[in-house]
Amino acid sequence: MKIAIFGGTGPQGQGLACRFAKAGVAVALGSRDGVRAAAIAAELNQKLAVYPGAAQIEGHENVAAVHAADEIVMLAVPYSGHDAALEQLKPHLGGKILVDLVVPLAPDNPKAVAMPPEGSATEAAQALLGQTTAVVGALHNVSAHTLNHLEQAINCDILVCGNELAASEKVMELISRLDVATYYCGPASAARCLEAITPILIRLNISKKVPFSHAGIRIWAPGSVA
Amino acid sequence: MKIAIFGGTGPQGQGLACRFAKAGVAVALGSRDGVRAAAIAAELNQKLAVYPGAAQIEGHENVAAVHAADEIVMLAVPYSGHDAALEQLKPHLGGKILVDLVVPLAPDNPKAVAMPPEGSATEAAQALLGQTTAVVGALHNVSAHTLNHLEQAINCDILVCGNELAASEKVMELISRLDVATYYCGPASAARCLEAITPILIRLNISKKVPFSHAGIRIWAPGSVA
Repeated sequence: MKIAIFGGTGPQGQGLACRFAKAGVAVALGSRDGVRAAAIAAELNQKLAVYPGAAQIEGHENVAAVHAADEIVMLAVPYSGHDAALEQLKPHLGGKILVDLVVPLAPDNPKAVAMPPEGSATEAAQALLGQTTAVVGALHNVSAHTLNHLEQAINCDILVCGNELAASEKVMELISRLDVATYYCGPASAARCLEAITPILIRLNISKKVPFSHAGIRIWAPGSVA
Repeated sequence: MKIAIFGGTGPQGQGLACRFAKAGVAVALGSRDGVRAAAIAAELNQKLAVYPGAAQIEGHENVAAVHAADEIVMLAVPYSGHDAALEQLKPHLGGKILVDLVVPLAPDNPKAVAMPPEGSATEAAQALLGQTTAVVGALHNVSAHTLNHLEQAINCDILVCGNELAASEKVMELISRLDVATYYCGPASAARCLEAITPILIRLNISKKVPFSHAGIRIWAPGSVA
């Protein structure tokens, strides 16, 4: 199995690449600059050398990374590049699932979202790619810091949404390889909530009133265990 | 200290009344029917008799309950009655803080929200009451079942939002008497997220895929404890 991460050379993309590779999932790491992607992939593979079962991370130009993936393409660009990236991706997806991780943070305020007219980034992606492409929103709320500290368990739950249940379940199965609980939260419109959780966590992290600095979210209930 | 719960005779209002009274906070429980409110208050006081430090719950007609509160009035009506309740409340608030618990669930689908044009119920309340009234959104995501099982700890966190930080902090201080963690999540617009968490939890509760039936949400991070 090989996934692609479009715009994967930032902290979030690198962290995800390492987590998936560590779990045995090969990763095609995409960047506008394929040479840079290859150099970063080499670094990450070196970091992963201490994990015997780790799969390989390859570096590619973004579109080449999409072609290298067998079924799942993750979009990890900043929100300012969200729509342009989707336009570039669109002719190359060929039935693959697009996993949208992007949070539309307000340009000058990471403690707030500025949602697009469609309601959320995931819905905007669905509108742009058309109804025949499966778009799944996921992984908005896990911090890059958490992802990159491979020696620590990911301690938050992963909330997932998408109009196609089967595609959403495929993505949840993939993500659950990272030893996290995943929850299906409904159609793409649920991304209005899921994406908006991130600036709340950023606010808590910035505030001095919580005893931690890389908050995530968990589903909790009577009888559930830590 | 005495709080009011407008529309407090439903399961959520009763559960909150019991929790606050158990914590030593007197409650003026409001209903359209003051006689019914008094009868329910008597029942709840009986239920609370096993807790030595419990404060009294009084039953009142809704507007009388608002007048009985010294500073904080909670609104616990179904969404269909949200705006009408606020119109009725408005002339009687007199500088008190309005805590909006209401979730705009879609009329025929409790697994989705149907947000008002203002963006959320909390923002609609703020618009309706005017900027000089402090409106705080809170307690959307704790289930009535959890509230009413007094022998169990409330096991979820309480996410709070509001344009006035000082009023929000007053409400957080009150809620923290229930032995729960409270987090300030930003201005009233954060209610677009907080209110929308509830139908996601309802979806999880309805689904057979989670091992529990009264889910809540928690903030979680490296180093935090259960």
